[in-house]
Amino acid sequence: MRSIEEFRNFFLKGYLDYRPNLVVDCAIFGYDCEHLLVLLVKDKIVTKWCLPGGYIRKEENLEQAAARVTNERTGIDNLFLKQFKTFGDVGRNCNKGSWDESKLEELAGIKVDGDNWLNGETASVGFYAVTDILNAQPSIDFLSSECRWFPVNEVPLLGFDHDDMLKEALRAMRMHLYHYPIGKALLQQKFTLKDIKQLYETLSGKKLNPTNFPVKLQSLGLLTKLSEKKSIGGHRSPTYYKFDNEAYEKALNEGLVLV
Amino acid sequence: MRSIEEFRNFFLKGYLDYRPNLVVDCAIFGYDCEHLLVLLVKDKIVTKWCLPGGYIRKEENLEQAAARVTNERTGIDNLFLKQFKTFGDVGRNCNKGSWDESKLEELAGIKVDGDNWLNGETASVGFYAVTDILNAQPSIDFLSSECRWFPVNEVPLLGFDHDDMLKEALRAMRMHLYHYPIGKALLQQKFTLKDIKQLYETLSGKKLNPTNFPVKLQSLGLLTKLSEKKSIGGHRSPTYYKFDNEAYEKALNEGLVLV
Repeated sequence: MRSIEEFRNFFLKGYLDYRPNLVVDCAIFGYDCEHLLVLLVKDKIVTKWCLPGGYIRKEENLEQAAARVTNERTGIDNLFLKQFKTFGDVGRNCNKGSWDESKLEELAGIKVDGDNWLNGETASVGFYAVTDILNAQPSIDFLSSECRWFPVNEVPLLGFDHDDMLKEALRAMRMHLYHYPIGKALLQQKFTLKDIKQLYETLSGKKLNPTNFPVKLQSLGLLTKLSEKKSIGGHRSPTYYKFDNEAYEKALNEGLVLV
Repeated sequence: MRSIEEFRNFFLKGYLDYRPNLVVDCAIFGYDCEHLLVLLVKDKIVTKWCLPGGYIRKEENLEQAAARVTNERTGIDNLFLKQFKTFGDVGRNCNKGSWDESKLEELAGIKVDGDNWLNGETASVGFYAVTDILNAQPSIDFLSSECRWFPVNEVPLLGFDHDDMLKEALRAMRMHLYHYPIGKALLQQKFTLKDIKQLYETLSGKKLNPTNFPVKLQSLGLLTKLSEKKSIGGHRSPTYYKFDNEAYEKALNEGLVLV
């Protein structure tokens, strides 16, 4: 929402452009080599921090809606977005009693009555993505006052059922580490086995057997060893690797078992 | 739907009892020691076989709706139902052009007009479950003409986007084999390591290293060795095992990594 007009139009006539009863919410994880972060938004009419999300335009499928929402929040295209769970508890409704109606009136002079299209029971399809925080530019719009990264272990109490969503997103992402390759958007073009171990440790949130993931990725043909070594000034210069693009894309589509 | 009255009422006034725009569909996998099967339904007004599914009652959450639908189809309570993906492509709509309207009129004298509550874009939340086929009693209702098991590799072309759903359900179930214990409802109370290997091979659809899953389950404390051995008449009687209930339930809730 860029302006008060767009905002008013969405509340009063959004049913012309958007599907009712269904939204997408996105846990966008950020990686900065050492920490795992998550992008949170503070809306002007919601009292708590939330995962970014929004309604689905009538011409979009769920994946396209999630891509648009994350693009609006981070400026990144082509995020590897993964659906992880849909949340549909009775009364989770984003649009009833979960926001401060007085702020809505104050901000845009709107009173949402019982017949409003936003008032129905609304399920949310959860997506997650992982990005290098350097590629992202968190941004706010008319409706939001803040948008920024939080370390995943220092997240405040979230609005609606987003605490549960974030927990489930983390759980799914950590399960998927064993079944989808990751790293092409998070590592430099060439990297050492130590870099990849660091990546998996940060994402999984635990210390790993030093050879586990790198060795498995190599044995499945996803890593190509380069002749170049990283110059670290010492006597043991680590070798650089890169991803084999074809094997990487294939594994991304078909899945694999890193065990 | 048990009667023509219930059926007519659902079509014409279902919006009073059910949420619009969202359904659940369930891939119910059946295990008979040697084969992996899936339960399909033939509706009288749909021209192809489908996964069983239905609308969500207003007082239900998604999991409860899936449990009700599978219970109506199989008679089983307490299935381990897992959400795997939500399907929301534009036009996938279960309720427009995907069924034979002349049969609807023939069957119940109903013409569904453009304003009908079933006509909106409808997303489907996919669940899967795995059950011993001996525990299930496939059953039909007023709306369906057949309901039976098909081997997963002999499934006919399905209606709507259910081919894709079934593929994704299989993929998710096979990924989950590495992260959730399975077997309590599929094996006898006591079983041999060979039984558990057979279970994992049938479910995963591939030959496995004979010690892989059984050894990992043991090392994580999920299996308890019994003193009793299976009498097979030969000189090498295999030992019986059982699941450790507490460890099993904990792993079911928290997940694990069988690698």
